[in-house]
Amino acid sequence: MEELVGLREGSSGKPVTLQELWGPCPRIRRGIRGGLEWLKERLFRAREDWYFLVALGVLMALISYAMNFAIGRVVRAHKWLYREVGDGHLLRYLSWTVYPVALLSFSSGFSQSITPFSGGSGLPELKTMLSGVVLENYLDIKNFGAKVVGLSCTLATGSTIFLGKVGPFVHLSVMISAYLGRVRAKAVGDTESKAKEVEMLSAAAAVGVATVFAAPFSGVLFSIEVMSSHFSVWNYWRGFFAATCGAFMFRLLAVFNSEQETITSIYKTRFRVDVPFDLPEIFFFVALGFICGILSCVYLFCQRNFLRFIKTNRYTSKLLATSKPSYAALVALVLASVTYPPGVGRFMASRLSMAEHLHSLFDNNSWALMTRNASPPWPAEPDPQNLWFEWYHPRFTIFGTLAFFLIMKFWMLILATTIPMPAGYFMPIFIIGAAIGRLLGEALSVAFPEGIVAGGEVYPIMPGGYALAGAAAFSGAVTHTISTALLAFELTGQIVHALPVLMAVLAANVISQNLQPSFYDGTIMAKKLPYLPWIRGRQIGSYPVTVEHFMNSNLTTLAKDMPLEEVVKVVTSTDVSQYPLVETRESQTLVGIVERTHLVQALQTQPASWAPGQERFLQDILAGGCPTQPVTLQLSPDTSLYQLKKAISTLINPPAPK
Amino acid sequence: MEELVGLREGSSGKPVTLQELWGPCPRIRRGIRGGLEWLKERLFRAREDWYFLVALGVLMALISYAMNFAIGRVVRAHKWLYREVGDGHLLRYLSWTVYPVALLSFSSGFSQSITPFSGGSGLPELKTMLSGVVLENYLDIKNFGAKVVGLSCTLATGSTIFLGKVGPFVHLSVMISAYLGRVRAKAVGDTESKAKEVEMLSAAAAVGVATVFAAPFSGVLFSIEVMSSHFSVWNYWRGFFAATCGAFMFRLLAVFNSEQETITSIYKTRFRVDVPFDLPEIFFFVALGFICGILSCVYLFCQRNFLRFIKTNRYTSKLLATSKPSYAALVALVLASVTYPPGVGRFMASRLSMAEHLHSLFDNNSWALMTRNASPPWPAEPDPQNLWFEWYHPRFTIFGTLAFFLIMKFWMLILATTIPMPAGYFMPIFIIGAAIGRLLGEALSVAFPEGIVAGGEVYPIMPGGYALAGAAAFSGAVTHTISTALLAFELTGQIVHALPVLMAVLAANVISQNLQPSFYDGTIMAKKLPYLPWIRGRQIGSYPVTVEHFMNSNLTTLAKDMPLEEVVKVVTSTDVSQYPLVETRESQTLVGIVERTHLVQALQTQPASWAPGQERFLQDILAGGCPTQPVTLQLSPDTSLYQLKKAISTLINPPAPK
Repeated sequence: MEELVGLREGSSGKPVTLQELWGPCPRIRRGIRGGLEWLKERLFRAREDWYFLVALGVLMALISYAMNFAIGRVVRAHKWLYREVGDGHLLRYLSWTVYPVALLSFSSGFSQSITPFSGGSGLPELKTMLSGVVLENYLDIKNFGAKVVGLSCTLATGSTIFLGKVGPFVHLSVMISAYLGRVRAKAVGDTESKAKEVEMLSAAAAVGVATVFAAPFSGVLFSIEVMSSHFSVWNYWRGFFAATCGAFMFRLLAVFNSEQETITSIYKTRFRVDVPFDLPEIFFFVALGFICGILSCVYLFCQRNFLRFIKTNRYTSKLLATSKPSYAALVALVLASVTYPPGVGRFMASRLSMAEHLHSLFDNNSWALMTRNASPPWPAEPDPQNLWFEWYHPRFTIFGTLAFFLIMKFWMLILATTIPMPAGYFMPIFIIGAAIGRLLGEALSVAFPEGIVAGGEVYPIMPGGYALAGAAAFSGAVTHTISTALLAFELTGQIVHALPVLMAVLAANVISQNLQPSFYDGTIMAKKLPYLPWIRGRQIGSYPVTVEHFMNSNLTTLAKDMPLEEVVKVVTSTDVSQYPLVETRESQTLVGIVERTHLVQALQTQPASWAPGQERFLQDILAGGCPTQPVTLQLSPDTSLYQLKKAISTLINPPAPK
Repeated sequence: MEELVGLREGSSGKPVTLQELWGPCPRIRRGIRGGLEWLKERLFRAREDWYFLVALGVLMALISYAMNFAIGRVVRAHKWLYREVGDGHLLRYLSWTVYPVALLSFSSGFSQSITPFSGGSGLPELKTMLSGVVLENYLDIKNFGAKVVGLSCTLATGSTIFLGKVGPFVHLSVMISAYLGRVRAKAVGDTESKAKEVEMLSAAAAVGVATVFAAPFSGVLFSIEVMSSHFSVWNYWRGFFAATCGAFMFRLLAVFNSEQETITSIYKTRFRVDVPFDLPEIFFFVALGFICGILSCVYLFCQRNFLRFIKTNRYTSKLLATSKPSYAALVALVLASVTYPPGVGRFMASRLSMAEHLHSLFDNNSWALMTRNASPPWPAEPDPQNLWFEWYHPRFTIFGTLAFFLIMKFWMLILATTIPMPAGYFMPIFIIGAAIGRLLGEALSVAFPEGIVAGGEVYPIMPGGYALAGAAAFSGAVTHTISTALLAFELTGQIVHALPVLMAVLAANVISQNLQPSFYDGTIMAKKLPYLPWIRGRQIGSYPVTVEHFMNSNLTTLAKDMPLEEVVKVVTSTDVSQYPLVETRESQTLVGIVERTHLVQALQTQPASWAPGQERFLQDILAGGCPTQPVTLQLSPDTSLYQLKKAISTLINPPAPK
């Protein structure tokens, strides 16, 4: 009975209900319930943001998958039309070209009519935003529709136009994140701080990459490398968490739709694991890196200058200003005509989609060795089991088609980037890099047909490994990133080439970072977007430079005890927009900043009745309502250049915690 | 003839030499020579640092490899002794235990006699250093010898003492980097700036990890996650470059020594690539993550408190203070006795080395299924082809030995961490995590013996995948890092489990980061090292907090126009060490900081002859030689908490460029 009384009061002294009393083990059950409630309270606080990250990841995965699905249908319809239209060359040509021309002019027209912000990849603009510049309306949710529809149309043209989806997806993800942030801020009744916002945008950028490639690691690292010049480790987990949710959901949908047996990587390779490469091959991998670096410089140079040419040339600039869809249609017609399979397209595997390009280039057999004695037929349709047949031509051989592919795609990609429509430029660069690597790999497999001898067995050289290294190195050099190496492993699901690929990427980056600005920085310059310049002299010599060495000491300052006449004289004789305000003329202690406009306004509203005898000072005006800005950051002349740079970017780019 | 005259003068107008004139294509040759000289000048500027990074990587790889080589010899000698000593239990027991006891007491005695800094992993101290605290002599090159010799002895005890080498290697690498930096600074005649130094230390930390595991990617990321709370992307390539050099050299030596056919990963696995896991298994991977998270909290709690207990307990603290080698010997005796193979060691696979533990735990077959009908023999020697036989006992079964291994190693590791000697604690944690994962994996393979049905074929569940996820999740939870997932892939050379492992690591981190400080932070607290605390409230609510909310506005300030009497009154009535110096009593504009000691000194040296009528002010004293410090950073009350935190760590921890 005492036991029961003890139970009745419970450990917290409250009376227990009948149900609790009669159920088995009421104390344990109450404990469990308490624990669950504690957990619920901990997890679902309105101020926590993990479910926000989950929502972001899942939403982006759904969008990415739905877009892929829709594009797949459109591409299949195009293939069907091309197949069914018969053997007449005119009809076939029309069926091949009309599709991309119509899609591209619609994409360009539709997206540009809604908002001009929806064009391009969006990454350069985001980079500018994350460095603290405010681009009005750039993250507005109304851009979202324009970008999704435009991008779908662009991608539905397949490998004809040869563009990707990474950049726009990062932009889409950041837009959704900004929108969700606003919704939550309204729901919680809280004003979002700038710091928090930027933190979320970085995580969103990672989600964008992760939901395209199902690669959470490289998503996070790539977005860090491209977007932010410095970042806090605390941001890290947010990015990883959201990117993992996105990538998981994206692959889960593929399983649910019976495309895949289980969750795997997108471009699965089957490289030999035992002896994937021989030690001397490392040399060729590094050489491939240097080649990719040099080619990336050529590409970046041509791309930037062609973009400038298009903008300044009389005809093209007029066409772009008046009718963007016609320009898009014109370019699409050129590109589609070049890729027409029975024509020149025959020599550049133009019947393959971009995913098939990658799949075939990462093939682990040596095509050159396989076609030495027997030439495979050119099938009426690309053979899914032997996609690489498309790369072979009896007269041109493998080398001819690969080289031709590279030369043609090089200028075609530069031409395609000038169309004002939503499109990503990472994937085409990745494929071009893979082709460069494949070319070298095939050449090596012919040069050393005896292959690698190890442990008594003979292994042939795998050109697919070089394609992997080339893709990572070329895309890394163009974007000035190293994480493309990791992306290559996550995409293929194999990491056996870890060291050679990393070395190739580093070699390529050495060349391109020293000679050219990155693709994104180049676009920022070409588009004349504002950005915080970086310190060029990266040698050790630049470290002892302090603020004293370059600060402007010829500033016109206003002292609080200055007579108004003198103030008027200063204001009329100079035309800077802000004046530093010092306490007294002697001490020169900075106390704030006065805007010229405010000062002029305040001076104009002064009563005209001030006699010369009754002298008035600046401080009287200031006391009378002229606003001054407080000093947020004051540096001593001993502050070093790097400390300054960091301090500026800290204040512009609100810092993250930890 | 005119041609020759043109040649003679050359394009630069200088006369050409005879050799140049007669060689073929003198212009081209001169061009090439000029290009090479330009390249040489560009590459080998004294202020460039890439060859410094190469040197660091190569040196560390050589040390790592040489140490592995020496340890391998010692371990082989121990094995030989144990085998040859006969069947007598006493002799066998002695030969098993004397070795570790002698090595450990030597390691502890030798390293502690040279410098007490050489104990432990060194990572907590480095973390403190990188956050701006100066630890005198911690990077002195004389610690180097102590650490190398001590660590070799510790590692030569093999799996008996069960300790690793990551932490000390990071410390060694940072020591070498600091030393090389000093040497170069002397050679170039340049004073190294603090910013540069810290940048190099971060790169060196990455080299330390990379040369142990031959894993450049995770080396960089792990060192970033553990060491720095924020980092600049510009530092990134330095780390990658040095880490790649180190990892490449480390594996190259293995190839040259004919241990490997080619450059591969260290703990190569052979997981099935087609269907590595089924979709529902994701649930178990995440559950494994949570289990690892909870166990890591238990471990961290026990470890921290046991360390505190050892330090405060009367007997152990006395023993540790007077005779560290005896304490080490005592602990070694306990640990060696427990692992004696014919005794309890039989049930915990104690004949395997730590590398063999990992190799066997990552095995892709299910031991439980294989031993269901037939029990493998317990061989006289561990069988290199079937290392997992060691994990089986006919009465205990696989589950018994794995559980027993976990329980025993749990307290043994905690005990081993208390010995004051150079040792790393990452590897044992990684192995314990692998065992946790293996246990769950084996249980699942028994629970679902029908395996995975996909595409008409049946695949068994792979417990090795769970071991991989467990290792990454447990070590990630203990160190509060995510990059352990990447480390698991780089170590095994397979990335098929990318998403499930990442999800397990995230789940484990959610638990441990919320409940316990990380292993390194815990050690920093237990050792009472100074460090910059982090912001605990990571929710959104902490973002709008500004400096105004918590700044101390009750400061005693000194004004320049204060009479000296008043200054004396202030100085005698307060006992802070610094006084803010303001311009006038009215304006309160901060102009600098006066040290109390300097002020007292200056006041004392004042002539006593100042009459009350002839009033003197503080500014007279300051003009008379009392030093003041300039204001480096001044913040407005509107600066946010996070901006402040960043600004402080920016100034403490000199920032890096770009």
